[in-house]
Amino acid sequence: MFKEAIYHRPKDNFAYAYDEQTLHIRLRTKKNDVEHVRLIYGDPYEWENGHWQVSYQSMQKSGTDELFDYWFIALTPPYRRLRYGFELTSNNEQIVYTEKGFYRTAPMDDTAYYFCFPFLNKIDVFQAPEWVKDTIWYQIFPERFANGNEALNPAGTLPWGSADPTPTSFFGGDFEGIIQKLDHLVDLGVNGIYFTPIFKASSNHKYDTIDYFEIDPQFGDKQTFKRLVELCHQKGIRVMLDAVFNHSGYEFPPFQDVLKYGENSKYKHWFHIREFPLQTVPRPNYDTFAFTPNMPKLNTENQEVKNYLLDVATYWIREFDIDGWRLDVANEVDHQFWREFRQAVKTIKPDAYILGEIWHDAMPWLRGDQFDAVMNYPFTNGTLRFFAQHEIRASQFVGMMTHVLHSYPTNVNEVAFNLLGSHDTPRLLTLCKEDVRKAKLSFLFQLSFTGTPCIYYGDEIGITGDQDPGCRKCMIWDEHQQNRELFRHVQKLIALRKAYKAFGNRGNLHFIDANDETNHLIYMKTFEEEAIIFLVNNNEQEIEITLPLSLKGKLLTNLWTNEQFAAEADTLKSTLPPYGFFIYKIEDWL
Amino acid sequence: MFKEAIYHRPKDNFAYAYDEQTLHIRLRTKKNDVEHVRLIYGDPYEWENGHWQVSYQSMQKSGTDELFDYWFIALTPPYRRLRYGFELTSNNEQIVYTEKGFYRTAPMDDTAYYFCFPFLNKIDVFQAPEWVKDTIWYQIFPERFANGNEALNPAGTLPWGSADPTPTSFFGGDFEGIIQKLDHLVDLGVNGIYFTPIFKASSNHKYDTIDYFEIDPQFGDKQTFKRLVELCHQKGIRVMLDAVFNHSGYEFPPFQDVLKYGENSKYKHWFHIREFPLQTVPRPNYDTFAFTPNMPKLNTENQEVKNYLLDVATYWIREFDIDGWRLDVANEVDHQFWREFRQAVKTIKPDAYILGEIWHDAMPWLRGDQFDAVMNYPFTNGTLRFFAQHEIRASQFVGMMTHVLHSYPTNVNEVAFNLLGSHDTPRLLTLCKEDVRKAKLSFLFQLSFTGTPCIYYGDEIGITGDQDPGCRKCMIWDEHQQNRELFRHVQKLIALRKAYKAFGNRGNLHFIDANDETNHLIYMKTFEEEAIIFLVNNNEQEIEITLPLSLKGKLLTNLWTNEQFAAEADTLKSTLPPYGFFIYKIEDWL
Repeated sequence: MFKEAIYHRPKDNFAYAYDEQTLHIRLRTKKNDVEHVRLIYGDPYEWENGHWQVSYQSMQKSGTDELFDYWFIALTPPYRRLRYGFELTSNNEQIVYTEKGFYRTAPMDDTAYYFCFPFLNKIDVFQAPEWVKDTIWYQIFPERFANGNEALNPAGTLPWGSADPTPTSFFGGDFEGIIQKLDHLVDLGVNGIYFTPIFKASSNHKYDTIDYFEIDPQFGDKQTFKRLVELCHQKGIRVMLDAVFNHSGYEFPPFQDVLKYGENSKYKHWFHIREFPLQTVPRPNYDTFAFTPNMPKLNTENQEVKNYLLDVATYWIREFDIDGWRLDVANEVDHQFWREFRQAVKTIKPDAYILGEIWHDAMPWLRGDQFDAVMNYPFTNGTLRFFAQHEIRASQFVGMMTHVLHSYPTNVNEVAFNLLGSHDTPRLLTLCKEDVRKAKLSFLFQLSFTGTPCIYYGDEIGITGDQDPGCRKCMIWDEHQQNRELFRHVQKLIALRKAYKAFGNRGNLHFIDANDETNHLIYMKTFEEEAIIFLVNNNEQEIEITLPLSLKGKLLTNLWTNEQFAAEADTLKSTLPPYGFFIYKIEDWL
Repeated sequence: MFKEAIYHRPKDNFAYAYDEQTLHIRLRTKKNDVEHVRLIYGDPYEWENGHWQVSYQSMQKSGTDELFDYWFIALTPPYRRLRYGFELTSNNEQIVYTEKGFYRTAPMDDTAYYFCFPFLNKIDVFQAPEWVKDTIWYQIFPERFANGNEALNPAGTLPWGSADPTPTSFFGGDFEGIIQKLDHLVDLGVNGIYFTPIFKASSNHKYDTIDYFEIDPQFGDKQTFKRLVELCHQKGIRVMLDAVFNHSGYEFPPFQDVLKYGENSKYKHWFHIREFPLQTVPRPNYDTFAFTPNMPKLNTENQEVKNYLLDVATYWIREFDIDGWRLDVANEVDHQFWREFRQAVKTIKPDAYILGEIWHDAMPWLRGDQFDAVMNYPFTNGTLRFFAQHEIRASQFVGMMTHVLHSYPTNVNEVAFNLLGSHDTPRLLTLCKEDVRKAKLSFLFQLSFTGTPCIYYGDEIGITGDQDPGCRKCMIWDEHQQNRELFRHVQKLIALRKAYKAFGNRGNLHFIDANDETNHLIYMKTFEEEAIIFLVNNNEQEIEITLPLSLKGKLLTNLWTNEQFAAEADTLKSTLPPYGFFIYKIEDWL
């Protein structure tokens, strides 16, 4: 066996508390190298006559990516303590892997050899809000969703949809417009809105905040926003706002004060100033987001700044009852700030959702003390490259998704924010080269995957657009210009996700087949006695897929057509049209 | 190259801020598999004409353990942000390793492939107190160090040293005794004392606290303790107390209240009670340390318990000016409690030292938000098995020490609490089968290794004793019964550690040679222009060691004898007696 490929380290994604009783333990081995793994485990203090009392239990292979196999087991240690090692078997070779290294047989004179999960303390368990697991998000870029009150239009506002957006154009989207169009969301079936920033700012995107306590006047006033939140709540829709705490805007009064008074400004410690006087060329001599002079980085280590921003965070929850915060450029702000942010937010609203914008591996922010989730761009990347862009084949895609799922604990995956696009990426349909069939399969996968999916406004009706500013076009409200068939497709998927627990977030996902030749995919999701199997043909050609033999004799319901049939020898084969799919519920599973 | 063996994941010990400017990056590869590694890196926002602006820099091989090579580089990113990957070369094969996997050449169309250290925020930098780096600790078990006031003797106290200790014996050690013997410590050269518990408790070891705000009367009163701390400070000695916060004693009044009033006790949430009434057989039906009924586990998630224990933590700092806390059974207490503990302690004394008792891999407690250090039992284990017990040979020992050093960031290693024994382990000399030469080499290695060493009372004068209670014998004060030669050996090592920065904690350690046949070891420590080379013969036989050729022509000072000689061709060979050693300072290094 390839010892060098074997990896385990508590805690993070390899050994974690799934809930207040259950530990999850994972092991990584080289792909196809190990046949069988047993966990050797016991309570560290459980000794009898000088012998440590251990048990053995087989681990399940939970997935395979490009290089590795992953093994999994869930345990409930009666005294919440665990010492453990791994017994690996392959080709009559057997080794034991412990914290202190490899042994031929399990050493039993001391527990100190073994990996340790010292105590399952409830307060340390990663806990995201329960409601997030059943939420389908919809992202709204307020300037571009709907213009409901032309009186608020900023100077130079263009007629709705009259031009492609530029970095500086305004079309007058506002809260009144959103309120008028809420039923579009209800109709689609979403039950959460993520709003990009709504606070007073200069730009159309509002990521350059001037006042964190004020609504941007182009969107409306606080009363209108309150009404919007109330209406959402009445319709069962949660509301998440965008917290741009990494940096302020150039016109943020404290920054203006520093520009004006320099070293004498009482706000000089609110930012990261490298020298006075401030200058912006050739590069800002103060820290900024990227090298953008009008986005000065806030000093979130400063107590005054902390107090100010935590006041902001609690104010909008307390006064407007919002349900969550999406944290812009979250990875560049200090961990200590986010820990205090979590304490402040959860104290005032224990089930608020905290979502960080992190594009890379984000384990250090997902240990239970900071965020509930991050924007799952690794999911986005794999899904788009497979279904939209056809840059990778089925087995690589399954490897990537397996890798994503094994990068974090399961309870983290269950609330991952799975998006196919945002105001920062080209539109789904554009990436699909406007082939709606590809977009449909992308949505199918997104809406049946583990996590909490988010639909970027307009993607459900086939809006196109390239990288920002192209992806920020005005929403299309003329139904004749909308792709209603795509809308109904997404709507149906959302309905199925809500109707069947196995379809949605509670379902346990298994990849069954990934064929690079036909580029088809079979995966199954199970929850208690419920089981659903997905057959997806990501291919220009019609193909014939054979259902797993284990389904023989089972009664299957096609959830798309509601037709039922028994999977007999002759019906185990299914013919899938180009870019077609079947979703079968297995009626007599278990 | 063996891709499966290649490992890197920010942050922890693989990518961390060493100080407010410097990032350390490490990579792990299969042993002897990779010839050269270059870091590919840049600021994520540094783009010109559509090209990401990257640099390349070679990494150094920083060590090798049983299975892996480790590579290292230190960097100072000008804008405190970094995206990076690794270019690995071997036998004309070249691969690039990124967060998204392996590539033949470095992808340059996007920074999203690369590993990310998003921002070096000062507040997140792991920072232990500076003074700890120059501290040599001495552990005192107060009941057994010196009896200075017989009037305080508990009932049944035995004459000092008149018998081997049992789990229940008392010999009357007290603060007065310690005060009288402080000059022994000064003479030895130690400048920090770690006291096992001193608060009111029933047992001789005092790990079963009755009152966290009272001194145990057998040791003296608060005034005497205050005098003790003041005297220590006058003599340049810091004082660390033992915080037994995982569990209380059986006689702790809140626990007595629960025993008495059961479900009606207002303290019932202070513990983890599984059912009422409480019972202790066959096992306690409340959580305890191990299965010890008289050590009920405290519920450190409860706000009242938190307030109480954080009051304790700050009280002894505020009122008695102690310098640190050693945290008993620290791994079984929740992380959230330790975060709040750190905040409370560092607020009142920013340079207090926080040392956790954790015997296993402790990375999750050493991320900057919880402890400054843990008791480094993996160091203890390797050092004793090589020098004291001769269970392993030189190369395995070097592998183990290299593994220890690469398990944590360098700034964590610099304050690691390196012990050769404690009240919980057999005595050093006993493990050496009373061969003083082996004990001397153990001390030599301990006192020249990275970290902050601790001497268990009496080990320096050759006290013997097996596992607890054997290792808790009375200190021997009759100099004729002390091993004064061993004392002078330890004293001299401490003096050298203090005299030469390279010898002590600031020195950068390199293993140069580890020979399994002769079982000898050569390692070097460097600090700026200072360099010291250690030659250690861990062998019954006299051996001849050849100095590294790079020393040819250098002037060497034998730090043990102060003799100087030039390392010429004929003097590059050194004859080392059985269990002998040379410590040479290289006078014209660099």
